[in-house]
Amino acid sequence: MKQIDYFYNITPDLIKYLNVEIPPILNPKTKRPFDPRELLRIFPEGLIKQEAELERDKIPVPKEVLKIYSTYRPTSLKRAYRLEEYLKTPARIYYKVEGETPSGSHKLNTALMQAYFAKQEGIETLTTETGAGQWGTALSIADSFFGIKTKVFMVRISYIQKPFRKTIMKIFGAEVIPSPSDKTKSGKNFLKNKKNYNGSLGMAISEALEVAATNQKVKYALGSVLNSVLMHQTIIGEEAKQQLKKYNDYPDIVIGCVGGGSNFAGISFPFIKEKLRYKKKIKIIAVEPKACPTLTEGEYRYDFGDSAGLTPLLKMHTLGSGFVPEPIHAGGLRYHGVAPLVSILKNKGIIETRAYGQKEVFGAAILFSKTEGIVPAPESAHAIKAAIDEALKAKKGKKEKTILFNLSGFGYFDLKAYEDFLEGKLE
Amino acid sequence: MKQIDYFYNITPDLIKYLNVEIPPILNPKTKRPFDPRELLRIFPEGLIKQEAELERDKIPVPKEVLKIYSTYRPTSLKRAYRLEEYLKTPARIYYKVEGETPSGSHKLNTALMQAYFAKQEGIETLTTETGAGQWGTALSIADSFFGIKTKVFMVRISYIQKPFRKTIMKIFGAEVIPSPSDKTKSGKNFLKNKKNYNGSLGMAISEALEVAATNQKVKYALGSVLNSVLMHQTIIGEEAKQQLKKYNDYPDIVIGCVGGGSNFAGISFPFIKEKLRYKKKIKIIAVEPKACPTLTEGEYRYDFGDSAGLTPLLKMHTLGSGFVPEPIHAGGLRYHGVAPLVSILKNKGIIETRAYGQKEVFGAAILFSKTEGIVPAPESAHAIKAAIDEALKAKKGKKEKTILFNLSGFGYFDLKAYEDFLEGKLE
Repeated sequence: MKQIDYFYNITPDLIKYLNVEIPPILNPKTKRPFDPRELLRIFPEGLIKQEAELERDKIPVPKEVLKIYSTYRPTSLKRAYRLEEYLKTPARIYYKVEGETPSGSHKLNTALMQAYFAKQEGIETLTTETGAGQWGTALSIADSFFGIKTKVFMVRISYIQKPFRKTIMKIFGAEVIPSPSDKTKSGKNFLKNKKNYNGSLGMAISEALEVAATNQKVKYALGSVLNSVLMHQTIIGEEAKQQLKKYNDYPDIVIGCVGGGSNFAGISFPFIKEKLRYKKKIKIIAVEPKACPTLTEGEYRYDFGDSAGLTPLLKMHTLGSGFVPEPIHAGGLRYHGVAPLVSILKNKGIIETRAYGQKEVFGAAILFSKTEGIVPAPESAHAIKAAIDEALKAKKGKKEKTILFNLSGFGYFDLKAYEDFLEGKLE
Repeated sequence: MKQIDYFYNITPDLIKYLNVEIPPILNPKTKRPFDPRELLRIFPEGLIKQEAELERDKIPVPKEVLKIYSTYRPTSLKRAYRLEEYLKTPARIYYKVEGETPSGSHKLNTALMQAYFAKQEGIETLTTETGAGQWGTALSIADSFFGIKTKVFMVRISYIQKPFRKTIMKIFGAEVIPSPSDKTKSGKNFLKNKKNYNGSLGMAISEALEVAATNQKVKYALGSVLNSVLMHQTIIGEEAKQQLKKYNDYPDIVIGCVGGGSNFAGISFPFIKEKLRYKKKIKIIAVEPKACPTLTEGEYRYDFGDSAGLTPLLKMHTLGSGFVPEPIHAGGLRYHGVAPLVSILKNKGIIETRAYGQKEVFGAAILFSKTEGIVPAPESAHAIKAAIDEALKAKKGKKEKTILFNLSGFGYFDLKAYEDFLEGKLE
C-alpha cells in the first residue's frame, strides 16, 4: 500500500459538524486561557503549533519521521480467523497490530514526532512519565534515533510489577526513576503521604513537568491526552482503512481501549471523520477498566492533568486529579483524566463507552493468545474483551458485523499479571 | 511478494555437488543404520518421511500450514540504515526479522509443521525440550492452533534466568517442567550429579524423549538439528532472496548464529543452493559462542543428540554428549552438537565458522538496539556481532559489501542478561 504521509486533525471537523467550540487550555493560576507562548517553557514549539491547529485537517508527516515510519509501518491488519471460529460468530473481527512497532506499542508513532521536534529545536533532554512502560520505551527509542537524552519517571507500581521494563529503557540509553521520587519537590510532597507510594501517572507527570519547567535544556514529552499526540496516532486508523479495502470490508464497529485516549483516537478518529462527513453508520466504542472509569463515571469539567496541579487546566472527563486508582495491571489505563478531544466526542454522543473488570479482561486475553498466537498487553485486552462481546452479540442476532479493534501493544512485559491470573491470584 | 509455498531440501544438492554420501542415522544399541520405521515410536510419520528425502529439492508446504504462515509471513527484511551510518561503513547490512513471528523467533516455522503432522496422525501430546524458551514457546503456540497438548522440559538455568518464559508457554496451555526433573528416569539420574543441576539441552532432550518413548499417545518434537527441521526454516532465506530483489541487491556475505543449526540453515541454505548450483561467490558464516564452540572446536564424528544416550547416533560436529556448557545467556546456543547437514558443509569448507565471547556479543546487541530500535535475543546477537565485524572489514578495505544476517529472535525475555551486562555483572 501507499505510505500514509499525513496525520488527520479532527478538530476542524468537530467544529464544523458538531458545532462545538474547542474549550481553551487555562492557566492554572489565573484560570484564564493560556497564551500558547507560555507553553514554550515546557513543550517543543513544533508540538505547540500542532496543538493549536484549528483549521487544517491534514498535517504532513515530516520527511525524517516518514523515513523511520517506513521501516516499521504499515503495521499488519489481521483478521482473527481462529478467534471467530472459536466464537462461532458470523462477525468478521480485524485487528491492527501496533505491537509490531519496535517499541512494542503504538506509542512510538508520537514519540518519533516529539523527538524530531526536540532535535529541530536543539533541545538536549526530553523528560516524561510512564505507567506501564510502553510510553517510556517508545520515547527512549525515538530519542536514541534522534540523539536526544531521555529521563523517565516511572510509576512505582509498574517499576515493581515489570522489573524488566526499566531495563529495556536503559538499553536505549534512558535514565529511569521510580515515581514518586525524592528527585523533585512534588515527588517529595507525594511521598509524605504513604498512600501515594505506588504512584500514579498523575504524580509521575508532575515530577517530569517540574524537571522540564526548572531546566531550560529539558522539555517535557507527553504520551497521550494532547490534541497533537492523538493526531500523531491517526496514522493507525488511516492505514486500517486502506488495509480493509484489500479485504473489501468496512467496519460496523470500531473499538479501542482508553487511558489518556491516544490509541483509541488513533484507530477511531479516521472513522469518526467518515461518520461526521458522510454519515457512515459506525459504532465507536471506548473501553476502560472499572478500576479507573474516567469516561463512564467521570465528570466533564476543567481539571489538572497531573496530581500536583502543575499542568494547565484541561476540559475533560475526570475522576479528579487527586484520584489514585487501584494498582491494576493495565497500568496504561490508570489515568484520572482523558483527552479533551475524546471527552467532546463522549459528551456529544458520538462514541459509546464501556468499563470492564480486570479478571474478565484477562480471560479475554488468554482466549485471544490461544487462538491468535499473540499475548496482548492488558490495556489492549480491554479492546479484545469488547470485540468478543460484540462478536457474541452479532452471533445472537445472527448479524454479519465487521468489527475492528486496535491491538495497541504486546504483553511481553506483563507476564507477572498473566502468571497471577493463571494461578488465580488476580483480584 | 508472492507467498513462498515450498521448503528447500538441500540434501540432493549436497549429494550432487559435493559428492558426499549422507551418513546414516545409527541405532544407539546396534550401531547399525536405523530403520526409519523404528523412529515411528518417537516422531510423527510425516516428519520421518521428510527426514529421509534424498531426491526432491522442493517440498510443498501443506495448505493448512501455508494459511497460518500467511498470517505472519513474509517477515520483514530490513536494511540497517542507522547501524551502517553509525559504523560509517560502505557495506549495506540487511537483516531478516524472524522475531516478528507470533512466537518471537524463527522456531514457529517448524513448530507449525510438527503440530500439523501430529494433528494429521491423531497424536494427543507433543513433548519437547527448550533452552532459552524460544522453541518451547513456538511449539506451545503451534500446538494451541492445532489442538495438541504440549509438555515442555525447560533447561533449569533458563527456567530461573527467564522467569516469565514459562508463563508465556502456560498462557498457550503448555505444561512446563524444569529439567533435570524427577519426572523421568534419566532426569533422576542427572540429578544425582550436582554439577547437572543447571541442566542442558542434552539433558532436557533425554527427558522429553523418554516420555515419548514410554507413552504411545505422546510423540517428540525437536526444534533443530534434524534435516527436516532445518528444511522448514529455509522459507526464511527463500523469502530474503525475493525481498533483496526489491532492493536490487544480492548478498556477498550471509550470517547466522548456530545452536543446533536451524536458523542458520534457514537463512543460508537457499544461498548455498546458488553457491553450489551457479557458483555464486557468497561467504557464509556460522557464528557460535566461545563457551560452546561446537563447530570451531568440536570433532566430526558419530555422537548422541542427548546426554543420556537415548537418541539415535548422528554424525556431526560435537563437543561430546556429556559436555555441559557454562550457563551463558544465549541458552539456545548451549548445545554440544550441531545439525549433520551443517556439519557436512563445515567439513567440506562451504561455510566459515566463528566463535565470540559473551561480552562482545552483548556490546553488539546494545549498539544494534540503539541504532535499529530492536532488542535482539542474545543468540541472534552473535550474528549481529559478525555482521558488524564484516561491515568494519568492508570499511577498512573500502569495499561495498552486501551483508545479510538472520535476526532469529527478539530479546524481550532476556532482559536479565541485559541488566547484568549494563551493570557490569556479566562474565
